[in-house]
Amino acid sequence: MRLATYLQAGQERFGAVAGDTVIDLNRASAALARCAGHAAAEAAADAAVGADVLQFLELDAPAVAAAAEAVAHVKALDRAEARAGLLVTDLSAVKLLPPVPRPPKIICVARNYAEHAKEAGLEISPIPIVFARFAKTLVAQGDPVVRPSVSDEFDWEGELAIVIGKGGHRISRENAMEHIAGYSVFNDVTVRDYQFRVTQYTSGKNFSASGPFGPFLVLPDEVADPHKLDLRTEVNGVVKQTGNTSDMIYDLPTIIEHVSEWIELEPGDVIPTGTPSGVGFKRNPPEFLKPGDTVSVTVEGLGTLTNPVVDEESQR
Amino acid sequence: MRLATYLQAGQERFGAVAGDTVIDLNRASAALARCAGHAAAEAAADAAVGADVLQFLELDAPAVAAAAEAVAHVKALDRAEARAGLLVTDLSAVKLLPPVPRPPKIICVARNYAEHAKEAGLEISPIPIVFARFAKTLVAQGDPVVRPSVSDEFDWEGELAIVIGKGGHRISRENAMEHIAGYSVFNDVTVRDYQFRVTQYTSGKNFSASGPFGPFLVLPDEVADPHKLDLRTEVNGVVKQTGNTSDMIYDLPTIIEHVSEWIELEPGDVIPTGTPSGVGFKRNPPEFLKPGDTVSVTVEGLGTLTNPVVDEESQR
Repeated sequence: MRLATYLQAGQERFGAVAGDTVIDLNRASAALARCAGHAAAEAAADAAVGADVLQFLELDAPAVAAAAEAVAHVKALDRAEARAGLLVTDLSAVKLLPPVPRPPKIICVARNYAEHAKEAGLEISPIPIVFARFAKTLVAQGDPVVRPSVSDEFDWEGELAIVIGKGGHRISRENAMEHIAGYSVFNDVTVRDYQFRVTQYTSGKNFSASGPFGPFLVLPDEVADPHKLDLRTEVNGVVKQTGNTSDMIYDLPTIIEHVSEWIELEPGDVIPTGTPSGVGFKRNPPEFLKPGDTVSVTVEGLGTLTNPVVDEESQR
Repeated sequence: MRLATYLQAGQERFGAVAGDTVIDLNRASAALARCAGHAAAEAAADAAVGADVLQFLELDAPAVAAAAEAVAHVKALDRAEARAGLLVTDLSAVKLLPPVPRPPKIICVARNYAEHAKEAGLEISPIPIVFARFAKTLVAQGDPVVRPSVSDEFDWEGELAIVIGKGGHRISRENAMEHIAGYSVFNDVTVRDYQFRVTQYTSGKNFSASGPFGPFLVLPDEVADPHKLDLRTEVNGVVKQTGNTSDMIYDLPTIIEHVSEWIELEPGDVIPTGTPSGVGFKRNPPEFLKPGDTVSVTVEGLGTLTNPVVDEESQR
């Protein structure tokens, strides 16, 4: 199953992607509850799948099972009726939001591909190096990434992102994969001069509208092996980065064990896992994103995250 | 006015501190609305002062004015009646929470006092160095700070924190002070070996239960000059750090101008502004917080933030 969060008639909804449509999971679950004779179908839906994706993730495995039942129920309904009841909507008719619009934490892994560390002239660390992104920087599939007026060094970083389901503190390597609710694509767009002008990456990694995330949250049933996924970043259709998650220095259990050593992971936390080689600032000559460009990141089986680049001035 | 957020009968409330009591601002505002003949007094209160401190901060100056009216209304009421209606409660009867329990962002300033940069052997940066804390690390007045089992290097850092009211992007120095809703005390407790074992401070600054914040949010009407406040950190009653905010390298307008250059500030964002000299790891011999210790940070006019130190094992 793959989940989308989206705006429909100004309201934030979440649903399961089915072809070029999305099935509203809360409404679908309520429809199933009504059909089963529940007096309080809306409350039953909130309890079964949650009212938004964060609640869905908090509810964990039972919500995934309930979602599958709700989807099956809707698929068996009369198609016109399901559309009229807003149970099914064309994806083209909604505005996608990031698959988790308000993650409690976004914890990014640096230098997780040896070739990228080498091109950046940085040593491989014996332990993961992580930095924080604020949720305020996230943009969805199709949204513009905004090149700030204060810098021209606007660089791409295509990445696999994991989303935490079951939270936990001091999670062992052995149990780590159970805490992953799903996978998505992240573009950790970076303002390079700001990243390196002081020791901490915070500013260079947290410009407004610099964090494309999506298009969907893909649950593990659709990902045979997250450590064997091809990754590709293109700018205007020209391939700039290629890699495979098998080349990660710290695999997913290592990352989860490391982060949960110091902080409790919570449902909805997002961990972008690092970028392979091919970023712009180490090209010869250096290349950066410019207004009018289109940047897209594809992770095998997870979809393609595409965003136009605009100038900050155009946003005023 | 100084605001507290607290738990009362399991419910999160916020109010204005009055001596050793707290006046529930939402209930007080509803009482005033009822008295003025409003049919929907609860909705009127939500619109006037908000349902929690984040909403209060979003409502900005009109909410401060409405809060003052609500407080005046309650003070004029019969005392027993006000207590019976939960308009007034003894502070000793509630559990304090951080004055903003869920800040959208916590952006900490590093090396903001020359003496501290010197003792740490670090250069003064021409621009502010900032790092992120996650809200999950926050604890309130009186809550234990938890020394993790993986390190003994658990160090104090007493700081002035500012809380953002009116949000904004690219805020100029000239307008910066208008964006400060209030002030509080922060103890940026740091796990030193984790802070320095990789280039990014993220892990060392984000251990579970390592971020005391409070006791209150003090509005600007009670702070004559935030750049002239004495600051003091004590461990078991022994003074370890003293300083004055007049010694900050980056003053508050500089910090706000810098941060809002890259990210939009939002109501409820918290900015701990850096610590003066006297931290434990540069003492001779080094000193760290141990289970059984009590650490307190006092900022002139803002109160004293006191927390016992416990061992992680004791929390299981």
